[in-house]
Amino acid sequence: MRTSTQAGGRPRESRVDHAIQTTVRELLAEVGYANLTMDLVAARAGIGKAAIYRRHSSKAEMVFSAVVHGMDLQPVADTGSLRTDLRDTVIDVLGRVAEPSVRAGTPTFLAELAVNKEMSARFQSTLVARETACVETVLDRAVARGEISHKPDPAVVHATILGTVTAWLHMLQRDDYADLPDQLADILTNGLTGS
Amino acid sequence: MRTSTQAGGRPRESRVDHAIQTTVRELLAEVGYANLTMDLVAARAGIGKAAIYRRHSSKAEMVFSAVVHGMDLQPVADTGSLRTDLRDTVIDVLGRVAEPSVRAGTPTFLAELAVNKEMSARFQSTLVARETACVETVLDRAVARGEISHKPDPAVVHATILGTVTAWLHMLQRDDYADLPDQLADILTNGLTGS
Repeated sequence: MRTSTQAGGRPRESRVDHAIQTTVRELLAEVGYANLTMDLVAARAGIGKAAIYRRHSSKAEMVFSAVVHGMDLQPVADTGSLRTDLRDTVIDVLGRVAEPSVRAGTPTFLAELAVNKEMSARFQSTLVARETACVETVLDRAVARGEISHKPDPAVVHATILGTVTAWLHMLQRDDYADLPDQLADILTNGLTGS
Repeated sequence: MRTSTQAGGRPRESRVDHAIQTTVRELLAEVGYANLTMDLVAARAGIGKAAIYRRHSSKAEMVFSAVVHGMDLQPVADTGSLRTDLRDTVIDVLGRVAEPSVRAGTPTFLAELAVNKEMSARFQSTLVARETACVETVLDRAVARGEISHKPDPAVVHATILGTVTAWLHMLQRDDYADLPDQLADILTNGLTGS
């Protein structure tokens, strides 16, 4: 348990932050976003509601913090080839999108994004920016290796990966995604190196 | 105004169906899915609520019918090249996804899809199946021309198109999509022909 002292002198209570995050992720997977309430989180985590509201102004904001907090948003290890770097990147994105608490929360999260400008800005500046940076690193390596002659727009390549994975799970509602990383990496690698 | 007689002898009242569809699409673009109600549709269309409920068991079902009804889900004209066929297909999909009433309703529609199995089955068997068939026609033409040696899974190629377009508008929340059809068609064409 780590505690430190803020300017105001109050302990940071990182144990409380951690308990909220863990509880929110558990409850998302168990009851889904629609049925998750601040009351349920408070009861399960053994924390007062006031302590939750001090940290999170809304359920949506609390869920976003909890879900993004645990994510490892680093570029994949350099495998020496664009194809396997892209495959590993798709596996990473798919792992995040298919994770039960994220999958359960995504549809309502997208509805919230459409009406909540602050949440949208935070999503763009955290998850989207960091995933796009990971894709850009992979593309930069391929340029350095001479595999591609000019770097495509990383935002478009990222949208292709995030979008295909999200459409597969949430629009086509398919659970058979074991082959998707190889299929998508093949299309993208040929697509980016063939021009 | 077209009327015909059903088995029960009641006129089909296609004028009423048409009025509901038109009104729903107008209201979606004006007030958004969340604020759209059966009452609002009834008042604007000048139709009794009972007449709406006879046709549509829920708001979600009514909106889905109205939005899908007007869609032209035919394969693009054969341009003689996979690249332009794919570009035109992306333009078609983007046109549907970015259409104001569809764009306004998509986030809540996806939330509804996640919990409404009947709606999901209907979405898969109508829009998804027909869009995938359009993509398959484009791929079959490319095989017949000798542009690609073996046909990839049309569901994956369709997910790449629908997913990228949807992610661009609803996850990245970007409105600059004029270049997207060419960018995506370039990646996909090279990706499918380069293997």
